[in-house]
Amino acid sequence: MTSGTNPRMPSILGGPVIILDQPQLGENIGTVARAMLNCGLTSLRLVSPRDGWPNERALGPASGATSVLDGVRVYPSLKEAIADLNYVVATTARPRDMAKEILTPKGAAKALRKKTAAGDACGIIFGCERTGLTSDNLPLADAIVSVPLNPAFSSLNLAQSVLILAYEWFQSGSDIPESQLHTGKSEVASKAQLQALFDRLEGELDEAGFFTSAEQKPSMQRNMRNMLQRARLTAQETNTFQGIISALTGKRKPAGNA
Amino acid sequence: MTSGTNPRMPSILGGPVIILDQPQLGENIGTVARAMLNCGLTSLRLVSPRDGWPNERALGPASGATSVLDGVRVYPSLKEAIADLNYVVATTARPRDMAKEILTPKGAAKALRKKTAAGDACGIIFGCERTGLTSDNLPLADAIVSVPLNPAFSSLNLAQSVLILAYEWFQSGSDIPESQLHTGKSEVASKAQLQALFDRLEGELDEAGFFTSAEQKPSMQRNMRNMLQRARLTAQETNTFQGIISALTGKRKPAGNA
Repeated sequence: MTSGTNPRMPSILGGPVIILDQPQLGENIGTVARAMLNCGLTSLRLVSPRDGWPNERALGPASGATSVLDGVRVYPSLKEAIADLNYVVATTARPRDMAKEILTPKGAAKALRKKTAAGDACGIIFGCERTGLTSDNLPLADAIVSVPLNPAFSSLNLAQSVLILAYEWFQSGSDIPESQLHTGKSEVASKAQLQALFDRLEGELDEAGFFTSAEQKPSMQRNMRNMLQRARLTAQETNTFQGIISALTGKRKPAGNA
Repeated sequence: MTSGTNPRMPSILGGPVIILDQPQLGENIGTVARAMLNCGLTSLRLVSPRDGWPNERALGPASGATSVLDGVRVYPSLKEAIADLNYVVATTARPRDMAKEILTPKGAAKALRKKTAAGDACGIIFGCERTGLTSDNLPLADAIVSVPLNPAFSSLNLAQSVLILAYEWFQSGSDIPESQLHTGKSEVASKAQLQALFDRLEGELDEAGFFTSAEQKPSMQRNMRNMLQRARLTAQETNTFQGIISALTGKRKPAGNA
């Protein structure tokens, strides 16, 4: 949805290896590659892919994440696929009778960032589409990642699981604030510009007989000022508002307020 | 991946309405429904779906989220689709020249939680697959949600965008800790059980002549204790470890340590 693939922007590389254990559909491998590259992950390993590798069915769903597909490495077993790594987490449903650290995707992202920063080679294991990871393979992982979801409907497909883990990885390294006012080409209005707007509006309203009760005028003024303050106007928007007042009153804008 | 659809578990309902503006493919509407229900969202509105509604192509990809599909409401325009709501955010790429609050998905989830808790009816708007939201429609939203992603490859498909927003909504209401030790059926070992294990191991190693240097014995003991401490053994596992020592030394386990 957020538009765009921009080959001139630097691709953010590094981060944990994604390991798919016995993936079945080539399409899913392609969608996984796309979700990985969306989040700056590029190393994909496949353990015994059912339909072999390379698989041309992966190409379309990868939507251009061919660099990930081109770099895929295939292994005969999960043990061999993680042999050179130092810290590995595995996504699965909550294990019933195993003593194991369980992380949320956010907790996993933090752990992976910490280990990566310490120089450890890291990986995230995903089981096959139909059965997930076998219990026998869980002890290979340092920790389990379990995605908190609606308990009545908690089944995610393979690419969605990868997307959520990869998304949390990317967010854990992002310094974009949770909320910011984007003002486009204009600056946020100065207090002087706002004050001029308040004065002008209230002056015009006074002339028009808007404040019928002298007693209530101060509270009406406060309410109007709060309303306009809350809109967090830009400098350009205070000018627009001055123009609106001029148009509504049938007057020319006062000189110097253009 | 996380296994399971369990009709006996209560479905977590409520939360913001998801509004798809002019969606094209029925399959995508189905995948959106699935991602929504995964995260406890159930109200889906469609604005002028290209292929009409209902659309049987949505059924398969919904993977059983038929309750969401059955409740779909269709509107002729985005304005009408949001008319009864109080707070609405729209997902889109960063607007170029518009003064607008921009939220991350996590920031949006927090804002939506706050508004929902205050009794406001909330919604999240997603543009069509090909072009996203038009600039003309952005002013309808209180804020913009932009997903921080690899700037070189930032294009998400419709269902993935919905999944990320819905996922953050669910997480913002979840009290599952980022990391926890799941111990299955057994309790974490008591310090007394650990101490008994340390004493036994060190005693056996003493007998076996493991500590060749009396000088280094204290630091070797400390290292072994730290290693076992770090494993955060369960009560059951200390018993298993006692059994391992017995087996390796060829001795019967001492009575009372079963």
